Amino acid sequence: MNPQSKLSGIFTPNLVPFDSHGEINEPELRRYIDWLIEKGVHGLYPNGSTGEFTRFTPEERRRIVAIIADQTRGRVPILAGAAEANVRETIKACEYYHGLGIRAVAIVAPFYYKLSPASVYAYFKEIGDNTPIDVTLYNIPMFASPIDVPTIQRLSEECEKIVAIKDSSGDIPNMIRMIQAVRPNRPEFSFLTGWDAALMPLLLSGADGGTNASSGVVPELTRKLYDLTMSAQLDEARRVQYDLLTLFDTMIYSAEFPEGFRAAVELRGFQMGQGRQPITSEQKTDISTLSRTLQCMLSEHGFTNEPIGGCATGITEELGNNDVSQIVQRVVAELNRRNLL
Amino acid sequence: MNPQSKLSGIFTPNLVPFDSHGEINEPELRRYIDWLIEKGVHGLYPNGSTGEFTRFTPEERRRIVAIIADQTRGRVPILAGAAEANVRETIKACEYYHGLGIRAVAIVAPFYYKLSPASVYAYFKEIGDNTPIDVTLYNIPMFASPIDVPTIQRLSEECEKIVAIKDSSGDIPNMIRMIQAVRPNRPEFSFLTGWDAALMPLLLSGADGGTNASSGVVPELTRKLYDLTMSAQLDEARRVQYDLLTLFDTMIYSAEFPEGFRAAVELRGFQMGQGRQPITSEQKTDISTLSRTLQCMLSEHGFTNEPIGGCATGITEELGNNDVSQIVQRVVAELNRRNLL
Amino acid sequence: MNPQSKLSGIFTPNLVPFDSHGEINEPELRRYIDWLIEKGVHGLYPNGSTGEFTRFTPEERRRIVAIIADQTRGRVPILAGAAEANVRETIKACEYYHGLGIRAVAIVAPFYYKLSPASVYAYFKEIGDNTPIDVTLYNIPMFASPIDVPTIQRLSEECEKIVAIKDSSGDIPNMIRMIQAVRPNRPEFSFLTGWDAALMPLLLSGADGGTNASSGVVPELTRKLYDLTMSAQLDEARRVQYDLLTLFDTMIYSAEFPEGFRAAVELRGFQMGQGRQPITSEQKTDISTLSRTLQCMLSEHGFTNEPIGGCATGITEELGNNDVSQIVQRVVAELNRRNLL
Amino acid sequence: MNPQSKLSGIFTPNLVPFDSHGEINEPELRRYIDWLIEKGVHGLYPNGSTGEFTRFTPEERRRIVAIIADQTRGRVPILAGAAEANVRETIKACEYYHGLGIRAVAIVAPFYYKLSPASVYAYFKEIGDNTPIDVTLYNIPMFASPIDVPTIQRLSEECEKIVAIKDSSGDIPNMIRMIQAVRPNRPEFSFLTGWDAALMPLLLSGADGGTNASSGVVPELTRKLYDLTMSAQLDEARRVQYDLLTLFDTMIYSAEFPEGFRAAVELRGFQMGQGRQPITSEQKTDISTLSRTLQCMLSEHGFTNEPIGGCATGITEELGNNDVSQIVQRVVAELNRRNLL
Repeated sequence: MNPQSKLSGIFTPNLVPFDSHGEINEPELRRYIDWLIEKGVHGLYPNGSTGEFTRFTPEERRRIVAIIADQTRGRVPILAGAAEANVRETIKACEYYHGLGIRAVAIVAPFYYKLSPASVYAYFKEIGDNTPIDVTLYNIPMFASPIDVPTIQRLSEECEKIVAIKDSSGDIPNMIRMIQAVRPNRPEFSFLTGWDAALMPLLLSGADGGTNASSGVVPELTRKLYDLTMSAQLDEARRVQYDLLTLFDTMIYSAEFPEGFRAAVELRGFQMGQGRQPITSEQKTDISTLSRTLQCMLSEHGFTNEPIGGCATGITEELGNNDVSQIVQRVVAELNRRNLL
Repeated sequence: MNPQSKLSGIFTPNLVPFDSHGEINEPELRRYIDWLIEKGVHGLYPNGSTGEFTRFTPEERRRIVAIIADQTRGRVPILAGAAEANVRETIKACEYYHGLGIRAVAIVAPFYYKLSPASVYAYFKEIGDNTPIDVTLYNIPMFASPIDVPTIQRLSEECEKIVAIKDSSGDIPNMIRMIQAVRPNRPEFSFLTGWDAALMPLLLSGADGGTNASSGVVPELTRKLYDLTMSAQLDEARRVQYDLLTLFDTMIYSAEFPEGFRAAVELRGFQMGQGRQPITSEQKTDISTLSRTLQCMLSEHGFTNEPIGGCATGITEELGNNDVSQIVQRVVAELNRRNLL
Repeated sequence: MNPQSKLSGIFTPNLVPFDSHGEINEPELRRYIDWLIEKGVHGLYPNGSTGEFTRFTPEERRRIVAIIADQTRGRVPILAGAAEANVRETIKACEYYHGLGIRAVAIVAPFYYKLSPASVYAYFKEIGDNTPIDVTLYNIPMFASPIDVPTIQRLSEECEKIVAIKDSSGDIPNMIRMIQAVRPNRPEFSFLTGWDAALMPLLLSGADGGTNASSGVVPELTRKLYDLTMSAQLDEARRVQYDLLTLFDTMIYSAEFPEGFRAAVELRGFQMGQGRQPITSEQKTDISTLSRTLQCMLSEHGFTNEPIGGCATGITEELGNNDVSQIVQRVVAELNRRNLL
Repeated sequence: MNPQSKLSGIFTPNLVPFDSHGEINEPELRRYIDWLIEKGVHGLYPNGSTGEFTRFTPEERRRIVAIIADQTRGRVPILAGAAEANVRETIKACEYYHGLGIRAVAIVAPFYYKLSPASVYAYFKEIGDNTPIDVTLYNIPMFASPIDVPTIQRLSEECEKIVAIKDSSGDIPNMIRMIQAVRPNRPEFSFLTGWDAALMPLLLSGADGGTNASSGVVPELTRKLYDLTMSAQLDEARRVQYDLLTLFDTMIYSAEFPEGFRAAVELRGFQMGQGRQPITSEQKTDISTLSRTLQCMLSEHGFTNEPIGGCATGITEELGNNDVSQIVQRVVAELNRRNLL
């Protein structure tokens, strides 16, 4: 693997399994990483939003990457989330990950406070000038300060260590604006999407790959969508994108993120344990129901057996029964009506 | 033309030219319609948002459609905006437009008040059960009550006179959800997008066409994008989509909508007159500046001459000089920072 | 009544009763107006948002004001909503209402399109320079283009015919900003609030009165809150504000606006008829349930009898049973979680 | 001081001064704490949003509270921000702060991810059942998952260690809803506001006090507003609230939060150092300009001298010159117009 190669393809933002004491389950994490690589993901992305990076201590975040780097042994590139409390702590983390030999880090814009573009620029500029390892900007405006197009353009021009942007907004015109602003001067700069629901149209619009949570659950399917799309088999790609959207919607809108993904990974044969965010007994029941729905979806693709008692015929009907998207739609519309959107 | 054919292709949401007294300039409107048809648009769409339908009286709205129907003489299908103050008035408009022999009407969900899905359903159900003419649902959540996926599905199942949805949100996963919910039962139901910035990816994701404001300015280019995309000439289509996005962003974000489009149509040789929404002298100056930028963009494609004094070399640089998107991006980010988004 | 006196006190944004054909029920409207005046409201406000002005034709809007003016015969001042399709039509309406001898008009900022401050200024400036009757600016950012503080200040300085602002945002710091910007130069300029949920704190912060939908239902209570607050009987005022908030929340969040208010006015003895926005049979059932809850609330204050079967003991418990606010809270939180807020 | 007394009055969310190496400037912090207590604040609130708690390491957060507890020596109660990466870490922090003898902790709802009410409940329930020290819920929906009224009610009923809520939304009707839901059963439960712009109306509506950033800058003024309001000297209170709003707007909207407050504390005589969020040279210049404006405002109240060169006459004009609120208003309106709000 050439460390200078352009980031592309599907990087899996892996979940972290816990043991019965709520600690990182290292053996299961190693087993999960092996499985992901065997199933064909192009890279790994620990300490992302799917990986619940904010719920770990700084020491735990380092340990997660160290375990994965050790287990991967260079088979695929690793992109490690490196955001810490402030610039100084983040640069220290970059140095540590550099020492582990990983490919690049991803750094989310500051969160909690919502910063102006000038401050977002100043933050990444100081990191970009002092990091020993390649940096991916991580734009996720629903959770963190947005990184706007002029900021991306300026950072790409001033900091050669900044080599990519991961955008989780799913906003296709904005992805095009980013590409138009950066690619002419930095053709090797990479554009990755974190929004599985629009992976096909984003790739067709010019993106280089994705960091997609669905690839931690159905790596075969996400990889297939990538391959079909990149080889312009449009009709087949569209069918897979439709299926992936249904599955993604179900996992993301039916439970507190990322519990739907955690439940689905369990169905693929991994002991994920109890997450660190406490849940009520009602929520536990809801996740059991969701798990059955997910099992039906996965069994349609041959990824699991059907649950005991069987399934309805077809993803669409299953989803219809489940009413997941209907509920979401209703809630959105209700809020809009009340001018709360 | 078969009145039962599926709505597809590019329908132009035409602007209305005014004379010096602020009245509809009928001769110029007729000339503009002829030009659009000659340039290859598949259909016409009067009384849309681009057509500023809210700024006309009910009588004027009818007159605009009557003029266009008379001038078109069946050369292309017409989709006429028919929303009036309430259900009864809207149905009366449907009857009038039916009498004119147009293909279908488009009806925006109720606006000002933001209605719940149940009320949006009840509104369209009463119209769908009483209209003599085919109806297109018009979803534009930034301006009007949203029409959610379960509502679209239910109306498509219960009302055969409802034959299409025009969605101006630009939300690709949601368009896919609509298609998944409706197409299996109503294969002839049509899905049109009003968001030019994502026309290519929306068509590739399964949409049937668009009602795109840019086609009123550069019908050649919007039509070309449609043709290239539908014939899967992806690299060329992407290039045209990038150019169209730049032009669209400039027209939509640089002036009060639809003044940027009005200025651009002037550059194509039509006397559009002064719009009905008053503007300040500062705004007039801004539009003059914008007009010059647009002239440079249009001249790159050979649609106009360069302005006196010439242009910078290339759309991208021109836009860079203009800083349009930068300003928009900054403002968005600033508001986000202040938690006002 | 001095036509030049400052607008102050409680102006009732009246609902319009319909007959069995969906037409304006003139006799009932006259009876309702008499009742409101007898119950002590300081003024009337036809063609407001509560009055569903957008669901009437231009001719009907004029007729509503004419009926009310005729019935009122100068007993209280009338503030009439005068917004029409464009500036010219709006000025014509101003002239008509002036001929009826009413006190002032209220004009909402342009809606559907969301206009910039410059355009909002240009719109009101042209009206302010040409109106024969005093104008109240109507700021309701949840439904229409916002009127910002600098725009209000500028219009107040340039147009003496603009004499008041009605603000329905409920944003108290912003109301203070408006007062700070205008009152030093225009001490007679009036600041009215349309947000019943914060009437007491807004009056204590410097507002002059309100156009409060609750005053069309419980004019005695809204008037009492105004009187207690203006005479600084703070503990009693606070208790009434708390009760009014509970009632207001129930009416505004339990049904499509303004159906909750319509149901409550029925309980006060008026035949309101079926509104023009169609509703489903499920919605009808919900309104019946709501009506019973409202009857219990109104009976606590002696405004109605208890419903057959009786009520729980106390508004708070009744509301708890009803779970109205809980549902609203849950929905808001859910959307926030999904980053849809 | 009775540790069981109800939390009330003004708690200052103190900033943390830095030395030239970016480390906590302990001597200056001690000096600042003494000054705040001398100026009359009722309590201290380290590790709040104003205190930039997210930009410190877990060890630094503990050290800040330890320094302040040591310096305060029981003169005023301390409310310490105790949120850490997860429930277990947060409870450990509660235990540590309990050992320091402080009055209570404040715990913000989980942030980055936006959690549902059920998850927010589960999070605080586990903390409330295991904390040795009194807990204040901290609701700041612009930065963190919202804590809705039913959740507050349920937690107040189930956890006696949860004794207060600090709400920074500034939403007065919602504060009333909280009070209505909790106070009947828990009369000693305290309601604090973090929104200085509406401190007077919130206190008049039933709140018990505030954690107000302005009290770290002008403790005399915030305290005076509290005293005037609680003693119902309404006209004087209103005047002070108006002045405080102007000052607060200037500090909060003219620079990245909390840089405006940092600049103002410098003017009161403290060396605050350079914050941990990097800023551009343009931002530095803006803060210098802001500092001059703030100096004029503070000098009007006698808190500082006028800057060299003098000031315009009066806060209002100064603000007019500065155009701070105008810019904010324009930006808000612009975004609203573009449907980005």
